[in-house]
Amino acid sequence: MGLITITSDWGVNDHYLATVKAKIYGYFPAANIIDVTHHVPVFDIGKAAYFLRNVYPYSPDGTVHIIGVNAIADKDRAHLIVCYRNQFFVGTDNGIFSLLFPKGEMPSDVYEITEMQDHECFTFPSRDLFAKIAALLASGTPPSKLGKPAQILNRITPSSPIIRHETAADGRILYVEIIGEVTYIDRFENVNTNIHQSLFAEWQAQFTHFEIHGVEPIRKISTAYSDEKISDVLALFASDGYLQIAMNEANAASLLGIKKQTPIIIRFENR
Amino acid sequence: MGLITITSDWGVNDHYLATVKAKIYGYFPAANIIDVTHHVPVFDIGKAAYFLRNVYPYSPDGTVHIIGVNAIADKDRAHLIVCYRNQFFVGTDNGIFSLLFPKGEMPSDVYEITEMQDHECFTFPSRDLFAKIAALLASGTPPSKLGKPAQILNRITPSSPIIRHETAADGRILYVEIIGEVTYIDRFENVNTNIHQSLFAEWQAQFTHFEIHGVEPIRKISTAYSDEKISDVLALFASDGYLQIAMNEANAASLLGIKKQTPIIIRFENR
Amino acid sequence: MGLITITSDWGVNDHYLATVKAKIYGYFPAANIIDVTHHVPVFDIGKAAYFLRNVYPYSPDGTVHIIGVNAIADKDRAHLIVCYRNQFFVGTDNGIFSLLFPKGEMPSDVYEITEMQDHECFTFPSRDLFAKIAALLASGTPPSKLGKPAQILNRITPSSPIIRHETAADGRILYVEIIGEVTYIDRFENVNTNIHQSLFAEWQAQFTHFEIHGVEPIRKISTAYSDEKISDVLALFASDGYLQIAMNEANAASLLGIKKQTPIIIRFENR
Repeated sequence: MGLITITSDWGVNDHYLATVKAKIYGYFPAANIIDVTHHVPVFDIGKAAYFLRNVYPYSPDGTVHIIGVNAIADKDRAHLIVCYRNQFFVGTDNGIFSLLFPKGEMPSDVYEITEMQDHECFTFPSRDLFAKIAALLASGTPPSKLGKPAQILNRITPSSPIIRHETAADGRILYVEIIGEVTYIDRFENVNTNIHQSLFAEWQAQFTHFEIHGVEPIRKISTAYSDEKISDVLALFASDGYLQIAMNEANAASLLGIKKQTPIIIRFENR
Repeated sequence: MGLITITSDWGVNDHYLATVKAKIYGYFPAANIIDVTHHVPVFDIGKAAYFLRNVYPYSPDGTVHIIGVNAIADKDRAHLIVCYRNQFFVGTDNGIFSLLFPKGEMPSDVYEITEMQDHECFTFPSRDLFAKIAALLASGTPPSKLGKPAQILNRITPSSPIIRHETAADGRILYVEIIGEVTYIDRFENVNTNIHQSLFAEWQAQFTHFEIHGVEPIRKISTAYSDEKISDVLALFASDGYLQIAMNEANAASLLGIKKQTPIIIRFENR
Repeated sequence: MGLITITSDWGVNDHYLATVKAKIYGYFPAANIIDVTHHVPVFDIGKAAYFLRNVYPYSPDGTVHIIGVNAIADKDRAHLIVCYRNQFFVGTDNGIFSLLFPKGEMPSDVYEITEMQDHECFTFPSRDLFAKIAALLASGTPPSKLGKPAQILNRITPSSPIIRHETAADGRILYVEIIGEVTYIDRFENVNTNIHQSLFAEWQAQFTHFEIHGVEPIRKISTAYSDEKISDVLALFASDGYLQIAMNEANAASLLGIKKQTPIIIRFENR
């Protein structure tokens, strides 16, 4: 396909991004390049993973993703090519790879890059190494020609929701609560959380009722913003599988007073 | 030509734009994609129309324009392909099409999209439907294969200038004033108005003199910024045909104290 | 190669950039376009030169660079095509060309553009002239077909460091100081200066010690950020050859209290 994406914390005011693209086109003029975003907060691999996790499911087979956040390698963190579902992820083993893929699907088809970089001086791996690797992968070079078999070594445990039970004297569970966190509030003020659809489904199967707590309780999961009336509060699972609180054509975060540290609670009970 | 433009209110910090581009390249790797702007104020179809109206006159035949602002369809607002001067406009019949084309040139070659979208869940038509439609149009599929004949139903009346006359006791017109509005102040602080060249020409033909009122009266229409000395105030008709107040190499809006609500008045009289 | 870069002060909120790209693709659909940056401060050719100077060393042979800052021509400032190391620079002779190339390498292979622009009205040369010129150059037209031989006439003397000596009564030089300026602080808060590697090398050859003064003295030149421990202060020569003060994974400018007007001093002495 020749498609290469770039996710970074370089911003777009400086020259960094342009040098990476110039190198890519130099190696492979037929490349198509997509900017995922260059506004990742500096060194924030959690946010970088969030954005890329929402993009790769829509990318065609053969797409190569350059991850230019916190990319300098050292003896504990190698430069890797990670192969997952016919796509390639080129970055540094700084923990980000453990945040990109669904639980239980950590890729094993992984290569440590052995191809030499362009310059002696090692200050900007995305320009001096990843651009070339991505161009070669996108033009059909197999990853096994660019590196040696390796493993993802560094793993980060993403924040996960807390589960709280309350039990009656007779041992009966009175209710269960999933207590999640706000992970990201986007431009439309949709509130993204760390509550995955699989966790919700697991508990929903055991109770007759659920209620998402907030300013206004939500008692159903919508499939689209437009399922609800304009300005109505709704909950849905976004394309990365995590619970989102939103309002149809309105700014949920401000209007509901939800901030980064607001707990998002789903309570399950039988009635 | 394979050229696709995107106009949106998604910003560039989030992943939305990248998913739309990934879908386009997935369907049509030879596409060229241009960002018109992604900084349209959220849901502001007037501003979206302003930007796109200034871009399509420079676009080659066959260009496809995706309009990703306020794009969710419902029973009163269909997803349309509008054909105008060998270009295609893909968007939602939310009123924007009535703001894109010159008065009296509302296109009649219009199709309601019947091609199915990619996903069941309908939250983001630009990614789930328009990307595919644009890719197919750009690669040569005729619009009649992607939709059924339809009409633009929803029209918005753009703000238009007020015309004020003063007449003498003998019935003679003393003067005529066009009272326009500021529509947009750009990065260079050029002041764009809602006074079209055709309206100006109509009145200019009937009087010997005109004067554009403001801090400094302007008594001629320039053809270029550089017609005037540096920092001189000037008026010209921008490429979309509307009157613009500017200063050569200086910030007209701040220096003249013009704000969004300042009336822009052209007075015509005979002397 | 078909690669065209654009450096401008147009921002990305307005429609200007999209019109230039639409024209380029109209003339040459196979072009690859790179945005160097569109956030050059308005009319600031010094900053525009800084960004482009950091990009063209990474661009492949045949790349065409459009310089859209302060681009309107007049009788003293022609529109030029400047050929340097198999790349083309298309812009206006407003002084910027004297800031782009290393000392002593001012290009002599220069053409004044004689090819006609697209419109009568001359308000936006990047759209109305440079887009076409760049498309033609990128698709293989030799510059001699688009202009007549000319010279770079307007030169700006870039700010250069001051050299301060102190001499003993016996005529012996006690120390020499290079007193440089901060030219740019980037997103990572790396501090860029106007002290070139060649100037440093010239003095370093004559003394046994040097020390870069600041909050913490620096006594060596690193080759990479990662040469130093995280948060250690370091100095290196950036890819454009100028001294940069930085911290590994930390914000040098804020943490060291360096601002635009802070002098950066290198003191050389024998011990």
